[in-house]
Amino acid sequence: MIRRTLQSIRRVGLCCLPLVTILTVRPVAAEELPVNWAVYGGNSEHNSNYTISQGAAAEALNRGVSWQFAEEGALPLDLGDGKDADVLGPRSAPVKTTQFLGNAVGVTVVGDTVFAESDAGFVYALDAVTGRLRWRAPVDNAAMGNPIVVDGRVFVGSGDTGFPFSQVMRAMAGETGPLVRGLSWAGVYAFDAKDGKQLWRFGTRGEDMPSQCYSDGALYFANGDGHFYSLDPATGKANWITDIGGFDSMSSCLVVDGKVVAGFTDPNNLVAVDTKTGAIAQRTDFPNVANTGMGDNSPTFERKDHEIIQVAVTQTAKGTQGDTVDLAVFAVDPVSGVVRWKTLLGDGPIPPAFKASVAMTHDGVIYVSDPATNTLSALSGNDGSVRWKSSIPHTYPTGLGRGAVTYHEGVIYQATGAYIYAWDAQTGKLRHELKVGGRLGIINPVIVGQTMFLANSWGWIMALPLSEVDGQMQRRVSLHPQ
Amino acid sequence: MIRRTLQSIRRVGLCCLPLVTILTVRPVAAEELPVNWAVYGGNSEHNSNYTISQGAAAEALNRGVSWQFAEEGALPLDLGDGKDADVLGPRSAPVKTTQFLGNAVGVTVVGDTVFAESDAGFVYALDAVTGRLRWRAPVDNAAMGNPIVVDGRVFVGSGDTGFPFSQVMRAMAGETGPLVRGLSWAGVYAFDAKDGKQLWRFGTRGEDMPSQCYSDGALYFANGDGHFYSLDPATGKANWITDIGGFDSMSSCLVVDGKVVAGFTDPNNLVAVDTKTGAIAQRTDFPNVANTGMGDNSPTFERKDHEIIQVAVTQTAKGTQGDTVDLAVFAVDPVSGVVRWKTLLGDGPIPPAFKASVAMTHDGVIYVSDPATNTLSALSGNDGSVRWKSSIPHTYPTGLGRGAVTYHEGVIYQATGAYIYAWDAQTGKLRHELKVGGRLGIINPVIVGQTMFLANSWGWIMALPLSEVDGQMQRRVSLHPQ
Repeated sequence: MIRRTLQSIRRVGLCCLPLVTILTVRPVAAEELPVNWAVYGGNSEHNSNYTISQGAAAEALNRGVSWQFAEEGALPLDLGDGKDADVLGPRSAPVKTTQFLGNAVGVTVVGDTVFAESDAGFVYALDAVTGRLRWRAPVDNAAMGNPIVVDGRVFVGSGDTGFPFSQVMRAMAGETGPLVRGLSWAGVYAFDAKDGKQLWRFGTRGEDMPSQCYSDGALYFANGDGHFYSLDPATGKANWITDIGGFDSMSSCLVVDGKVVAGFTDPNNLVAVDTKTGAIAQRTDFPNVANTGMGDNSPTFERKDHEIIQVAVTQTAKGTQGDTVDLAVFAVDPVSGVVRWKTLLGDGPIPPAFKASVAMTHDGVIYVSDPATNTLSALSGNDGSVRWKSSIPHTYPTGLGRGAVTYHEGVIYQATGAYIYAWDAQTGKLRHELKVGGRLGIINPVIVGQTMFLANSWGWIMALPLSEVDGQMQRRVSLHPQ
Repeated sequence: MIRRTLQSIRRVGLCCLPLVTILTVRPVAAEELPVNWAVYGGNSEHNSNYTISQGAAAEALNRGVSWQFAEEGALPLDLGDGKDADVLGPRSAPVKTTQFLGNAVGVTVVGDTVFAESDAGFVYALDAVTGRLRWRAPVDNAAMGNPIVVDGRVFVGSGDTGFPFSQVMRAMAGETGPLVRGLSWAGVYAFDAKDGKQLWRFGTRGEDMPSQCYSDGALYFANGDGHFYSLDPATGKANWITDIGGFDSMSSCLVVDGKVVAGFTDPNNLVAVDTKTGAIAQRTDFPNVANTGMGDNSPTFERKDHEIIQVAVTQTAKGTQGDTVDLAVFAVDPVSGVVRWKTLLGDGPIPPAFKASVAMTHDGVIYVSDPATNTLSALSGNDGSVRWKSSIPHTYPTGLGRGAVTYHEGVIYQATGAYIYAWDAQTGKLRHELKVGGRLGIINPVIVGQTMFLANSWGWIMALPLSEVDGQMQRRVSLHPQ
């Protein structure tokens, strides 16, 4: 029924790559795959690049493995770009598949297991080497995050993007006060990592779409009812609950300097809360943000300059009625909450659901895509100056590059649309592109050894050898369906 | 896992029923179970009371059969009133189960098959005699209606109650123009009644929660994007599409005098459209309606007085900010669209989702419940005068009696909350009550011969012998789980 077809591979000619690029690559040693996946992307830089030297899967993942796993309801990968609308109905189908069918963001890898959350209401645990299903657990609504795995427990949030009519009525009546996002059920779940047995569920009024973060014995999250929560990971009981106001759509939290940080909409604030007490430490107000352009994007830590990078879709000179938005990258001081610098990446059409992108930082450089202009940029963490900016080929109408990219040995890997791109980290030159089909939504590629793990919004979880993803390397493993 | 437990039976003492009631009962012959189920409830009076003299199931259904079928995700029936909140989270759980889990409205019976739509995204076909599953077909969102079955095809709509943030933003900005209801996918499906094979799907921008209606070779429906549609039942191609404005939440259509009629919100109109051309024939404006109180309720035809009965939740003197609403029953002339009379049933707390109720008419009398005051009334179709009004026992906090009742041989059967009630149609005296557990949401009992068919919002489809439902009769079949 589901055709497991990976599309034909296109290679960028080697002739186009200047020799100097290869000479100036400075491979920086990646860290070992952590035993706990405590934050979205696996680390606060959202650079999901890991070595693996221990465990049963190490040898295979260092060689590079290839498999494709079709989740329940998966669409054929060779349906064609944007053709999900033909199957799923006329209304903004790309947004709907992102929100209701497959995987909104990327996967989690711990030990020899790949964990993924599906918008169709399931959590999957697969064998990282073979792609075989270990377990599947149901949740009560879409699961849009990156599973957090700590001490043998898998944490997953559920929720949806909707508003009930009562919220529309309030807005029509001009009433003030925070909106609550989330139509159907919502909660944060804990499962046993071994067998998927549900350990507890913590229900909330608003949606719990953002990923949680774990630090020092507590699980944190912000959500659609405008609160920050701290839970005991063992029992699911609340340590504290703090009313922030507004709502967090998809801004996954981060712990920096003893404060847990996430973005909120209405008002558009980056909020930092004391991890121990739940007291609001600071609120950074971002002016001119469009729609949910703030609470829809996860903050990133830039370690070298010790700052928080937040991306937001902002209004252009045309104002809220305009058809274009500008993408703003902000650097925020974690101690004071003051904005250090702001860089605008340029006007372009409104991305799907007003989502900006998630920045990735590595060695003082910020790699950030702009889904309004379909570009990828490298910014200096020091002052936000643009080092290079490249256009992403094979544009959808708009909305490419919403997920974080991954830095690995001088190469930036990007999964967006139907393609995986390999860019030179120094120059921004395209090294290679690989068409895998389907639609890679807000996906960050996870690299472990010589294997890349992905999930897409058409309901697929995949492993690919890096040798396939970057044509510079020798092809070692077949990409054809198993 | 699911405990199939029917709760203990409570009987109302015979001593309380005056002899005169029994003497004045006028049994009116019910019609034979139709070969096509062309409208919500099976007929325009929404009185789902049928005899059965032909077909394989006739003998068993005339004796009375008993079975309970648990759908996917069904909650235990003995969980306790309102306890679904404990399982499903803190946010208005009764509304959520109604909208996302089990069966929003009642079942359809054609031949020896029971058809039911589930909010969990499935259509079920069961053997009417044994309750055994014949087939189950998936749809892409909640299915909240009453399957329409004509010429071997089963028609089902999908959708949800949500609004995307863009609609909230428009309301906040004070923009005018019709709202569109529906967050995720929506469409009308046709399945083969024999095996559940999907024949076609017609996708729409807004939700398709109301039931369709069939007349003279065409399938009609109104929906969340504020249009009336006429489709070819064989192909799913549109005959015509008419832009009405506003949105229809759960107002299932009705064909009267060559016009198809349904209720809309924003503005609160009962709209009649020419079945052949799609031209708007008339619009009746209902003033003072609260929230979705209009487009959430299906109109009913009152044959004796040749009028359309529409129920709506209206504002009280306290206005929109009040905690109470009044339930209004309107009689509308089908030719002119003019309101002939209006009866207010009294103030009470706001019912879940602002839903009023669906009226049932029989022999010039309108039987209508008021979920604001938890009462059942009989009104004269001629002038709307109240013949009797009775309080429904075992109140939920609010919201009883949202579904249509059923008239059978001088008895009014009502399925609401955890109970089935039998009322004397002449006097409104309670004859009997039977606790079945779970939550009967907007359910109309379907009576075929001596068997009652129900579905509930906790995910159950059931058959019960009438002898069990009305303690006046001798108990013949065990109610205990099979």
